[in-house]
Amino acid sequence: MAKTRVGIINVTGYAGVELARLLYQHPQVELRSVTGRSAAGQKLGTVFPHLAGLDLTIEAELGEVDLAFSAMPHKDSAGEVIPLLNRGIKVVDISADFRLKDAAEYPAWYGFAHPAPELLKQAAFGLPELHKPEIASAQLVANPGCYPTGAILALAPVVKAGLIEPDIIIDSKSGISGAGRTLSLTTHYSEANEDVTAYALEGHRHLPEISQELKLLCPEQSLSVTFVPHLVPMTRGILTTAYGRLSSGKVAPGEKGKKELMDLYRDFYRDAPFVRVVDFSPHTKHTWGNNNCFIYPTLDPKGEKLIAISAIDNLVKGAAGQAIQNMNLMLGLPETAGLEAVAVYP
Amino acid sequence: MAKTRVGIINVTGYAGVELARLLYQHPQVELRSVTGRSAAGQKLGTVFPHLAGLDLTIEAELGEVDLAFSAMPHKDSAGEVIPLLNRGIKVVDISADFRLKDAAEYPAWYGFAHPAPELLKQAAFGLPELHKPEIASAQLVANPGCYPTGAILALAPVVKAGLIEPDIIIDSKSGISGAGRTLSLTTHYSEANEDVTAYALEGHRHLPEISQELKLLCPEQSLSVTFVPHLVPMTRGILTTAYGRLSSGKVAPGEKGKKELMDLYRDFYRDAPFVRVVDFSPHTKHTWGNNNCFIYPTLDPKGEKLIAISAIDNLVKGAAGQAIQNMNLMLGLPETAGLEAVAVYP
Amino acid sequence: MAKTRVGIINVTGYAGVELARLLYQHPQVELRSVTGRSAAGQKLGTVFPHLAGLDLTIEAELGEVDLAFSAMPHKDSAGEVIPLLNRGIKVVDISADFRLKDAAEYPAWYGFAHPAPELLKQAAFGLPELHKPEIASAQLVANPGCYPTGAILALAPVVKAGLIEPDIIIDSKSGISGAGRTLSLTTHYSEANEDVTAYALEGHRHLPEISQELKLLCPEQSLSVTFVPHLVPMTRGILTTAYGRLSSGKVAPGEKGKKELMDLYRDFYRDAPFVRVVDFSPHTKHTWGNNNCFIYPTLDPKGEKLIAISAIDNLVKGAAGQAIQNMNLMLGLPETAGLEAVAVYP
Amino acid sequence: MAKTRVGIINVTGYAGVELARLLYQHPQVELRSVTGRSAAGQKLGTVFPHLAGLDLTIEAELGEVDLAFSAMPHKDSAGEVIPLLNRGIKVVDISADFRLKDAAEYPAWYGFAHPAPELLKQAAFGLPELHKPEIASAQLVANPGCYPTGAILALAPVVKAGLIEPDIIIDSKSGISGAGRTLSLTTHYSEANEDVTAYALEGHRHLPEISQELKLLCPEQSLSVTFVPHLVPMTRGILTTAYGRLSSGKVAPGEKGKKELMDLYRDFYRDAPFVRVVDFSPHTKHTWGNNNCFIYPTLDPKGEKLIAISAIDNLVKGAAGQAIQNMNLMLGLPETAGLEAVAVYP
Repeated sequence: MAKTRVGIINVTGYAGVELARLLYQHPQVELRSVTGRSAAGQKLGTVFPHLAGLDLTIEAELGEVDLAFSAMPHKDSAGEVIPLLNRGIKVVDISADFRLKDAAEYPAWYGFAHPAPELLKQAAFGLPELHKPEIASAQLVANPGCYPTGAILALAPVVKAGLIEPDIIIDSKSGISGAGRTLSLTTHYSEANEDVTAYALEGHRHLPEISQELKLLCPEQSLSVTFVPHLVPMTRGILTTAYGRLSSGKVAPGEKGKKELMDLYRDFYRDAPFVRVVDFSPHTKHTWGNNNCFIYPTLDPKGEKLIAISAIDNLVKGAAGQAIQNMNLMLGLPETAGLEAVAVYP
Repeated sequence: MAKTRVGIINVTGYAGVELARLLYQHPQVELRSVTGRSAAGQKLGTVFPHLAGLDLTIEAELGEVDLAFSAMPHKDSAGEVIPLLNRGIKVVDISADFRLKDAAEYPAWYGFAHPAPELLKQAAFGLPELHKPEIASAQLVANPGCYPTGAILALAPVVKAGLIEPDIIIDSKSGISGAGRTLSLTTHYSEANEDVTAYALEGHRHLPEISQELKLLCPEQSLSVTFVPHLVPMTRGILTTAYGRLSSGKVAPGEKGKKELMDLYRDFYRDAPFVRVVDFSPHTKHTWGNNNCFIYPTLDPKGEKLIAISAIDNLVKGAAGQAIQNMNLMLGLPETAGLEAVAVYP
Repeated sequence: MAKTRVGIINVTGYAGVELARLLYQHPQVELRSVTGRSAAGQKLGTVFPHLAGLDLTIEAELGEVDLAFSAMPHKDSAGEVIPLLNRGIKVVDISADFRLKDAAEYPAWYGFAHPAPELLKQAAFGLPELHKPEIASAQLVANPGCYPTGAILALAPVVKAGLIEPDIIIDSKSGISGAGRTLSLTTHYSEANEDVTAYALEGHRHLPEISQELKLLCPEQSLSVTFVPHLVPMTRGILTTAYGRLSSGKVAPGEKGKKELMDLYRDFYRDAPFVRVVDFSPHTKHTWGNNNCFIYPTLDPKGEKLIAISAIDNLVKGAAGQAIQNMNLMLGLPETAGLEAVAVYP
Repeated sequence: MAKTRVGIINVTGYAGVELARLLYQHPQVELRSVTGRSAAGQKLGTVFPHLAGLDLTIEAELGEVDLAFSAMPHKDSAGEVIPLLNRGIKVVDISADFRLKDAAEYPAWYGFAHPAPELLKQAAFGLPELHKPEIASAQLVANPGCYPTGAILALAPVVKAGLIEPDIIIDSKSGISGAGRTLSLTTHYSEANEDVTAYALEGHRHLPEISQELKLLCPEQSLSVTFVPHLVPMTRGILTTAYGRLSSGKVAPGEKGKKELMDLYRDFYRDAPFVRVVDFSPHTKHTWGNNNCFIYPTLDPKGEKLIAISAIDNLVKGAAGQAIQNMNLMLGLPETAGLEAVAVYP
């Protein structure tokens, strides 16, 4: 059977190059074309020696493909994606350009007026654990941000079940690769090493995504979500610790309550092949290089508050891996195709 | 003038060895005696080459001193400290053995009955920013834990002012040296590197200290404190992000409220030479090797919740530096004596 | 076709657990049995959460298999391997117990008399780039050490061609996982982080392996090999920088000589699917998690000395990956089966 | 007594900011003026929060001082330094602009014709362990590069004693801060973390310095020095491993020879307060933040070759600390003034 032809727009960022790594191992698709602004004309293996096994040249324009991934920065991505959609090509957009349903959010959070607001309704939000049917039938899938992936998965079961009070705190710790391959003082080795810091306290762009998806799960509740991202000195991984007061009387105290939570989460994710609901505090290390999301839901010692912890690899489940999971659903392939590799430990 | 003679019990852990480093630079005291269980008889500079400049031999028993630091583990420390107190020697205890005022907390959190409950009342809680007069007149000072130092300092001004609701979330990120020099799989390089994880979700021993001190600041309020520590792959530093809903109407929204908070914190810490209230998100890197605590109090984007972030070096302000700050107060020396060195950056 | 049944003795060290990861992805073998001393009875996925997808229980004794990997420490490994050989099972031994051809080396370097010297001749030295035919027909393959793999591959072409003088310097830099999962102060996070050190200056156990193999390549020359290993603060990877004076007049000076060297290396490794002879200084990062060895042979600026640099992942090409490469040859499978995955970057 | 007024040209690089940290602690000089191109007009503590204790504003032009440190990049530094010299101000130049005695080396290695070749003879090479008298009487001191400092100190005693053959290999491993604060892909966190690589194989600019100084120690010998620098994932520290064959019959074999070497080194450095000749393999960690250089001279296991290992902090003994050591000598202060602080461990 002919393999589906796929391409990557902007292969030279970390999400793009991770897509290339994972697609190379995918048995049912063929990576046919990759583009990159500054590196056009060079062999992929020259720019990224670990990809020397892929015989591809970075192009200025995408070649003929059946499905494209856009790893362009926001705003620029829409400009690349819209023409492809018009030509009938399926697209997974890794940027934020089609994630928010309300076009008014774009000027507020991203500083540009959305060029095609009508597409926002058509685009599926690419978190397969919540939107599998829409993704399967979509032409355009908006891949979630790395922080939203970990945060929404950690909270979805209790929010949907209406078990927590509206005040939610999401404290995330990310590896440095989440800041991309573009140079900055923040990601300069000697500045980032041996350091932890919080950032974006005036509001991170991933907050509206998180709020949008949690509200969809529980439209009747008006949530107040506080989200603070932190940079920690490692390359990959996001650990999210989410906190919320349990609604009075809805969860039993002590071990019984912990078990109720565990059952709720396991049931919620029973059809989610990449979510592992565990009964221990997860390590980002256990997701290094693969598409799993570990989730540990528990109660604080007094039994009054939920603590839900998730661990992902920000470049895999938080970006390229999830994009391929979405592609699998869009193409009718097994959801896990090409994504079975075990995390690299230690 | 004769220098005060000081000694360190158990110099071979990270807090002990850091005490030796800092005391060596102190102009008004002389480090006369250091003890260590397994290394007794060896030169200090043999075990710790960076301390070769100190001509000291590790002893089995403490020599004659005017003031002793105990860097023993909890439970064992009390056994060392009590005889010294009986001989009239001043003591700064870095362990937890005299931090909690309520003796009943010891069996609950530390698994032993306290051997001298009467001393718990006499001991000063060694956080100079809150207890300077008691420390100055105490024979025994209980040096706070590393997490409580960062957490209490981040929250004290708003708690004392009664500005926040009882539900408080404290999310702390610590470097690995906080787990000490004793070997464990958790602190094995290949396990800790490239990893973030939360731990002690069933309740960390530093929680009762935090609760005790916050309650003292606002006895009329019944707080519900949730504290989750995390390990991040770096040697030194603790970043604490504390969250709480502001009591309705007590702080203005927006920039005005942020300024009110900043003024409140700056006023609260106006006599605290090591606390720097700043208007940016602090980096643990800026405290590397010194006794400063950076604090950034702010509002979340909606203006409903406090976010207060503190950064310390866990081995300095979180342990040895604070112990010397306490010693300075006990001996009537300038609070900053021996602690003026600038952080090592980058 | 029935898959070959394989097993791992001592799965709980880093080489063992890496074998499990890689074998899980191998299309033609089935991992049937894993053993581990302390963890016997536990599910593999309980001890190593990233392996939860493998439904295996750690056993005290190896079950029925066609080929076994021993990841036991030296000396103990021989005791496990010999009975398996007697039962006709093929074995890849990751320990040093069958690497040295001269039994007298064992007391000298490893402190024990070899229990079965006759097997030393039968065992193939498992560096496929040098010994492919012997490996293919062997019942017992002695997998090389991590340092010897990088060092021998860097030097083999010039040594075999007789191009360098006898004085050879091998300076290797290894990630910390090479020291294994057993706890030690050397591998304690706070000791190993932000540090570089040389070790084993009195002679490292990998030296006789390196000398043995280089001598085999050029029996007429009496080499004087100096090997100094270093620990650098990262989890995986070995970079080896090898130096030697070129024999007078055998290589042209300048760019011409560099090209001659490049041609020599490329020709030498033309049938080696995992060796990539490159014209730039390689990064260990480009081998993270996969079986490649990058080699860059060049001349020093004066054109008098060879500098040959190799980069490998110490747990893959330096241990588990190479063991599977050997297994593939022993079983008549394609040499690259199960080892095609691209390195994980960044 | 009035303190000597000193200034720093280009305080905003890592060498400059480290000078500020160390000078702040110096009892006999006062840091009066700091300049910086892009940051002129800002408070020093705004750009570098750890220096908030220094009440200094970054200026465009240096204020009135008695001695200036130039931390400008090479070529630009000479342009700043020459006018200061003409005004009679003493200068320690941290750049390479006055290190090489032969003006012809500048076009070859640095790509520019030297603007004041006559100054090259007047400038003292600022390695106090070799040139103390010249430094003490110089108006201009050329502070050595970080690699040359570690390399020359490791080799000087044996080279001067004529004990080794001309072929010398110097393999250095440096932390990333050595590459400075200017952004580059090489120093981007996700590229540098978990990676080791060699660089500058076509010839590093520090090689002529090393060759010049070693030749001065032994003018009759024609050395062939090969120098390969490596980047390792840590912020600070350089470990240098130097190799050379011992001249036949000049050093005894075995332990006796090791002791002869040790005695030679200890005698050579008997008046060098910052050099610690030790009988164990040193760790860069033991120099973190201070001006020490640990040196371990030993023999390889066969007793034929010297292995000499040195460890320094590249920003202290390799740059700012050594500059202050030079300043102390130039001003007639104790050589160790302001540099007594113990390394920060762990």
